[in-house]
Amino acid sequence: MNSECVKKSNIQLKIEEYKTLTDSFLDKFLELRYPQIIWESVRYTVLSKGKRIRPAIVLESARVCGGKIENAIATACAVEMLHAQSLIHDDLPCMDNDDYRRGQPTNHKVYGEAIAVLAGDALLSLAPSAIVSSTPKGVKRETVLKILDEFLCAVGPEGLIGGQTADIISENQNVKPETLLYIHANKTGRLFEFSAKAGALIAEASAEKVEALAQYGKFIGYAFQIADDILDITGNIETIGKTPGKDVKSQKSTYPQLFGLRKSIDEVNDLCCKAVSILRDNNLESDFLGSTANDIALKVNEK
Amino acid sequence: MNSECVKKSNIQLKIEEYKTLTDSFLDKFLELRYPQIIWESVRYTVLSKGKRIRPAIVLESARVCGGKIENAIATACAVEMLHAQSLIHDDLPCMDNDDYRRGQPTNHKVYGEAIAVLAGDALLSLAPSAIVSSTPKGVKRETVLKILDEFLCAVGPEGLIGGQTADIISENQNVKPETLLYIHANKTGRLFEFSAKAGALIAEASAEKVEALAQYGKFIGYAFQIADDILDITGNIETIGKTPGKDVKSQKSTYPQLFGLRKSIDEVNDLCCKAVSILRDNNLESDFLGSTANDIALKVNEK
Repeated sequence: MNSECVKKSNIQLKIEEYKTLTDSFLDKFLELRYPQIIWESVRYTVLSKGKRIRPAIVLESARVCGGKIENAIATACAVEMLHAQSLIHDDLPCMDNDDYRRGQPTNHKVYGEAIAVLAGDALLSLAPSAIVSSTPKGVKRETVLKILDEFLCAVGPEGLIGGQTADIISENQNVKPETLLYIHANKTGRLFEFSAKAGALIAEASAEKVEALAQYGKFIGYAFQIADDILDITGNIETIGKTPGKDVKSQKSTYPQLFGLRKSIDEVNDLCCKAVSILRDNNLESDFLGSTANDIALKVNEK
Repeated sequence: MNSECVKKSNIQLKIEEYKTLTDSFLDKFLELRYPQIIWESVRYTVLSKGKRIRPAIVLESARVCGGKIENAIATACAVEMLHAQSLIHDDLPCMDNDDYRRGQPTNHKVYGEAIAVLAGDALLSLAPSAIVSSTPKGVKRETVLKILDEFLCAVGPEGLIGGQTADIISENQNVKPETLLYIHANKTGRLFEFSAKAGALIAEASAEKVEALAQYGKFIGYAFQIADDILDITGNIETIGKTPGKDVKSQKSTYPQLFGLRKSIDEVNDLCCKAVSILRDNNLESDFLGSTANDIALKVNEK
C-alpha cells in the first residue's frame, strides 16, 4: 500500500473507533426503562445507521488539543442526540413531512406523531443531561458549565431552532442571500461549530485553538450544507441515500438555486480549503479533521 | 382587619411581588430578536395570564431557607418556561388537541403547528440556558450543576415527559392505580417537587430541609392534580377557567374516576395536611407555602 492508502485506512480505523465509543455510550445512556415506548422511539432514531460524524469531531478535537477522549464522550453523544432530535421534529407532518430517513420510515411513521414529538422533547433534555451527569469529575466544573452554555445557545432559537424557524417561514418565498446564510449557519453550521469547539474546550486548549477549531467547524458545517444542496441536484438515490430533486420540487431556496451550480461547487471547495488551512496554521495535526473537510469537497467534485 | 385578614393580604402581596420579579426577568430574557416569530410565539404562552405559582415556590423556598431571592430567579423562570413548554406541546393536535388555554387560543392556533413545535423546543433549551447563564456568580458552580441535573431529570423521560408519555398511551384504556400515580407524580408532581427543592438547594440549605421541601412539593403537586380532576367534575367554567367535563368526555382515567369523588377529596385534604405538617416539623416558617397547600384543599371543599 502507498502512504496515502495507509493514511486513509488509519482514518477509517479512527472513525470506527469513535463510532464504537459513541454507540456504546448511547446504548447504555438510553437503555430501555418505563415508559418503554418513549425510550424505544428515542433509540430508533439515535441508534439508527449513520456515520456519527459530529461526535467524532468532538472526540478528535479533544484529542488533537491534548485532551482525554473519555472526558469528551458525554458531550460528543449530546451532539448526536441533539442531531437526532432535529431529524425527528423536522420530519413531522407539520414540518417537512418526510416518510423516510436514512432508508427507514421516519420516527412518527413508526411511533405516531404524539410519541415522535415527545421523543424529540426527551432528547432535548437528555442531551444536556448527559453533559451534566456523565462528564468525568476530572473536568473543571467551570468548563462543564461553559460547554453547557455553548451547547444550549447552539441548540436554541439563536442557533439550530432559529435556523429551522427561518427555514420554515421562508418556504415558497424568494429568499435573500443573507437569510439563506443565516439558515445554513444555524440549521447545519452551529452543531458542527459547537462540536469542534467543545472538544477544544474540554481539553482546556488555548483561546486561539478553541477559536480556530470553532472556525473549522463553521466552515465545514457550511460546506456540508451547500454540498447537500448540490447533491440534491447532481446526485442519485444510491450515492446520497435519499430521493434527489426534493428541494426543487418543494421550491426550497438553496445555494445552487440562488447562485448557480458552478459558484456553489467553488464555494464548497473554498470553504473546505479554508478549513484545512486553519488546522495547519494552528498546528492542529489531525488527518481525520483534514480528511473530513476534503471528503466534502471530493463529493461535489465527483463526476 | 383581624389577624387572619392581615396574613392573607401579606400573602397576596408576596405573590404579586414574586410574579412581578418573574415576569420582569422573563420579559427581558425573552426579548424579541430574529427570527421574530419564534420569540413572539414563546412569549405568547410564557407571558400569558397566570399566577406563576411554580416560580413563586422556588423563590419562597429559597427565602425560607435563608437564601437570596436574586440567586433563585433564573431557576424560578426556568420552571415557568418549562411549564409553558409542556402546555404548548400538550395542546398540539397530535396530543390533546386543545383550541383554548387560559381563555385564549392555544399557541398552534395562533402561530401554526410548525412554529408551536419549535416554540416548545426553544423553551426546552432556553429554560436550562437561563439557569446556566443567569444564576449569579455568588452561587457555587457545583450547586448550579446540581440544580441543572435535577431540573433536566424532572423534565426528561423519567420525569414530566415520561408522565406525558404514560398519559398518552393510557388513553381509552383501563388504567391501573399505579399507572395513574406515575402519571400524576411525573406529569404534574415533578415540577412542583423540583421547584420547592431547587429553592432549598440554591440557599445551600441542610439535606433535611432540601428533602423536606422536596416532599412538600411532591405532596402539593399531587394534590394539585387530583384537585384539577375533581373540579373537572364539580366545577363550572367561571371557577376553573376552562370547560368542565372534558376528562369524562375524553374517557380519561382520573383519580375521581378510579376511586370516587369522596375518596378523592379526602386524599387532597390528606396530602395538603401532610404538606403543611412537613413545613412545621422542619421549622420552615412560610405563610405563603402553607397557604398554597391550604388553598388547594379549600378549592375542592367549597360547595
